[in-house]
Amino acid sequence: MKLIQTPVKGMQDFLPEDMALRQHVLGVIRETYARYGFCEIETPVMEHIENLTGKNGGENEKLIFKVEKRGRELEKSLQKIRQADGISTDAAGTELSDSALRYDLTVPLCRYYSNHKNELPSPFKALQIGNVFRADRPQKGRFRQFTQCDIDIIGDASVMAEIELIAATCDALHRIFSEVGVSGFTVHVGDRRILRAMAKSAGFEEQDFDEVFIILDKMDKIGVSGVREELIQAGYDTDKVDRYVGFFSDFAGDEAQDPAAFIRSTCADCVENGVEQDIGTILSAAGAMINDDITLKFDPTLVRGMSYYTGTIFEISIDNYSFSIAGGGRYDKMVGRFCGQDAPGCGFSIGFERIVTILRDLGWKEPGTAARKAYLVDMKSAQGRITEVFSHAAKERAEGIQVVVQPLKKNAKFQVEALEKSGYTEIRKVYGDTQF
Amino acid sequence: MKLIQTPVKGMQDFLPEDMALRQHVLGVIRETYARYGFCEIETPVMEHIENLTGKNGGENEKLIFKVEKRGRELEKSLQKIRQADGISTDAAGTELSDSALRYDLTVPLCRYYSNHKNELPSPFKALQIGNVFRADRPQKGRFRQFTQCDIDIIGDASVMAEIELIAATCDALHRIFSEVGVSGFTVHVGDRRILRAMAKSAGFEEQDFDEVFIILDKMDKIGVSGVREELIQAGYDTDKVDRYVGFFSDFAGDEAQDPAAFIRSTCADCVENGVEQDIGTILSAAGAMINDDITLKFDPTLVRGMSYYTGTIFEISIDNYSFSIAGGGRYDKMVGRFCGQDAPGCGFSIGFERIVTILRDLGWKEPGTAARKAYLVDMKSAQGRITEVFSHAAKERAEGIQVVVQPLKKNAKFQVEALEKSGYTEIRKVYGDTQF
Repeated sequence: MKLIQTPVKGMQDFLPEDMALRQHVLGVIRETYARYGFCEIETPVMEHIENLTGKNGGENEKLIFKVEKRGRELEKSLQKIRQADGISTDAAGTELSDSALRYDLTVPLCRYYSNHKNELPSPFKALQIGNVFRADRPQKGRFRQFTQCDIDIIGDASVMAEIELIAATCDALHRIFSEVGVSGFTVHVGDRRILRAMAKSAGFEEQDFDEVFIILDKMDKIGVSGVREELIQAGYDTDKVDRYVGFFSDFAGDEAQDPAAFIRSTCADCVENGVEQDIGTILSAAGAMINDDITLKFDPTLVRGMSYYTGTIFEISIDNYSFSIAGGGRYDKMVGRFCGQDAPGCGFSIGFERIVTILRDLGWKEPGTAARKAYLVDMKSAQGRITEVFSHAAKERAEGIQVVVQPLKKNAKFQVEALEKSGYTEIRKVYGDTQF
Repeated sequence: MKLIQTPVKGMQDFLPEDMALRQHVLGVIRETYARYGFCEIETPVMEHIENLTGKNGGENEKLIFKVEKRGRELEKSLQKIRQADGISTDAAGTELSDSALRYDLTVPLCRYYSNHKNELPSPFKALQIGNVFRADRPQKGRFRQFTQCDIDIIGDASVMAEIELIAATCDALHRIFSEVGVSGFTVHVGDRRILRAMAKSAGFEEQDFDEVFIILDKMDKIGVSGVREELIQAGYDTDKVDRYVGFFSDFAGDEAQDPAAFIRSTCADCVENGVEQDIGTILSAAGAMINDDITLKFDPTLVRGMSYYTGTIFEISIDNYSFSIAGGGRYDKMVGRFCGQDAPGCGFSIGFERIVTILRDLGWKEPGTAARKAYLVDMKSAQGRITEVFSHAAKERAEGIQVVVQPLKKNAKFQVEALEKSGYTEIRKVYGDTQF
C-alpha cells in the first residue's frame, strides 16, 4: 500500500531554507532574552486533559487534539460509552482520552511552576519555546501546529515585571526586523481592571462584560460608531452604550491624550487602587528602554482574548500588517489553580510564525556564510582514493569549513549547478589522477 | 478544582540547568553536522495514522499515541463502534483516530522526502532534531517523550553515505564528550545482508530469521554459548545452531580478525555482491577520518531492531555504559513506500537523552559565562527611580551583558544568595540615594 506523502492537515514541513530562517530568528530571540536573565525551560507537548479543559484556555479549549487512552483503560472507556447511549460526542471524546496536546505554553508553565517552585529562583523569569496545537480551520498563515516563544515572570507583583517583558520583547523584535530594514512597531498597553471599571461605570452587568469586550475589541476595525451600533444590536440600552462609547470617543481621536487624565475621568476606582500609577510607570520606564522607532502607548480599547488575564494586557502591532505580532498580560490567579496558593504571573508571547512569514515575504536572506567546498568523486577512476579524499575533507572540516563529499553524477553539470545554488563556492571533481 | 501539577506520566519538565545542558549539546551537534553539509529540516510531530501503522516501525507501532478524530468524524466513528460489537479494542482505537504522534524521525523523513523531492538537492543530507513519542513502560532513563537527533542521506547508494554519517556522528560525539574528559567509543559496523547470508548458509528458514536475529543480538550479554543454548531452546536443530554459532566463535574471540576473511569464509554471496568491498571501504575511509580514541570495527553480531534496514547497520557503544549512544543503517526500500519509486537512504541517530544523562552524571558544568549583573530596587525609597535604573540596565544589555532588575525583597540575604547561585556576580541594591 502506498503511504500518504503530505503532512497531516494544517501542519507544515519545513524545507532547509525555511529552517535556516527559523533557527536564525530563534537564535536572536534566545540571545536577547538571555541578556534580560530569562532562563529557558521545556515542558512536554502533552498535558493532562483535566488541565486543558479547566476553563483557562477560553475558545482554545474547543480546539484541542485529544490523545487516546491505551490498552485496558481504553477498553474500560469503550465499555462505558457503549452502555451510555445518550452521551454526547464531546463527552465520549473526553472519556476516551487521558491527555491532549497543549494549545498554549501558559497553562503548562503554571503547572511547571507549581510543580517545581522550590527549585526555581524567585522571581522566576522563564523563556519557553515550543510547539502548540489547535484543531483550527486551516487558512493562510494559520496552522494546526505552530511555534510559540513566551517569556514570563512569576513571583513579581510589581510593574517591574511588565517593564522587563515589554523591554525584552521590543529589543528582540527590533533586532530581528532591523535586519530587513523594517521598523514601525506600536506597543499597546491596556488593563483589564480599567476595562472592567469602565464597563461597570457605564452601567453594564458583570455577566455581560465578556460580550461587551468582544465588541469593543473591534474598535480598530469598525471605529467608535461601529462599536456603538453593534452594542445596541446586541440588545444593550442606548443610554449605557452612549455613556460607554463616550469614554472612548475623545481618546480614540487624540493619540496624545494623557492616559492619567483618561483614567481619572473614566474610573476613579483605578486611581485609588494604583492602576493609574502602574500604567504611568510602565509607559515611562519601558519607554526609556525601547528603541526610538517603537511607539509605546496606552490603549484603553485593548481587550486580549484570554480569560485568565487579571491586570495589564499588551499587544504589539506592526505598520502595514493587520495582525499583531506579540501579545501578553498579567495573570495573577492561574498558578493558584495548580498549587492552591496564588503567585503573580505576567507574560509576553511573540507570534513566531507571523514574524517568520513577514521576514520571508520581505525576502530575508541568510547572512553571508564562509566558504563551502564540495568534492565530487568519480567512482570509476577514484574508487581507490576515497579514503584520501575523506581525510582531506576531515582536515578542512576541523578548521570549521563546510565540506560535502559526493559521488560524481553522470549529469555533472546539473549536480554542480544545484550545489552552487546551495552556496557551495568551491566545487572540485576528483578523478584517479587529481592532485590535492 | 485543583489541577494536576506533575507532567503526564513518563514525560519530563526541564529545569533551567537541564535546558542549559540540552541546548549546549544541541549547539555542538548543529555546528558539527553543518560542517558536513547536513541541512536542518522539521516535520510535524503528528503523522497520518496510516503512515505509522504500515509495518515500518516494528515493535514501536505497538507504542503509538493515537490522536482522536474530532466533531462529525468522531461522531461517525463512535456510531460504527456501537454497531460493531465484536470489534477489538485496538481496532476501535484506530477507527476513532485519524493521526498519531510519531515514534521516530525516519518515517516522517521518508514521507517528507517523497513530498518535496523536487525541491531538495540530491543527494539530500538532512539533519532532523525533534521529539518522538512512545507509550512505553516508563523506567529510569526511558521517557514517553524524548528528543532524537538524526542525520540521513537520501539519494546516495554508494558507501560514501555510510562514511559521511559515521564520520559526522563520531565528530559530534567526540566534541561533546571531550568537554567532560570522556573518550572510549566503539563504532560497530554490521550488515543485514551478511546476517541474512549467514543464517541462510547455516540452514535456517527465511521465516525464522527475525527470531534467530533477536537471539543473536544478545551475544554481547550472554556470549556464544548463551546464544547457542537459547537457539536450541527455541526449537532449532542442533546441527544448524552449531554451524551458525561456529561462524561467530572464532570472531568473537579475536578482535583483530580480518573482516574480509570472515565474510569470505561465511558467505560467498556477499563477496560476489560487493558487500565485502563495501565494508572494507567504510572501515578504511571512516577510520581515517575519526579521532584516534574511537575504535571502528566490523561486528557481524550486530542486529539492530528496525525491520526497515536493508544493508549496512551501525551502532556506537561507550566504555563503562551498557547501552549504545547512537545507531543507524541503510534503508533502501522505505522512500518507495511513499512515492512508489525507491530512493536509497541511510541514517544515523544520536541517542540524545542518553548522552545528556551521561554528561549530567559526569557533572557537566556550563562553560564560563561573562559577568552577570543584578539590580535590586527598594520599591519604597527608589520607586521614582525605576526609569533611571532600567535605562542603565538597557545600556549594559546593549553591550551584551546579562542584567536582571528586580524588586528588593524583605529577605534580601536569601535573594542575594539565590542570585549568586544562578551566576550573578555583581549584585547592587538600589535605594533612593544610590549613585550609579
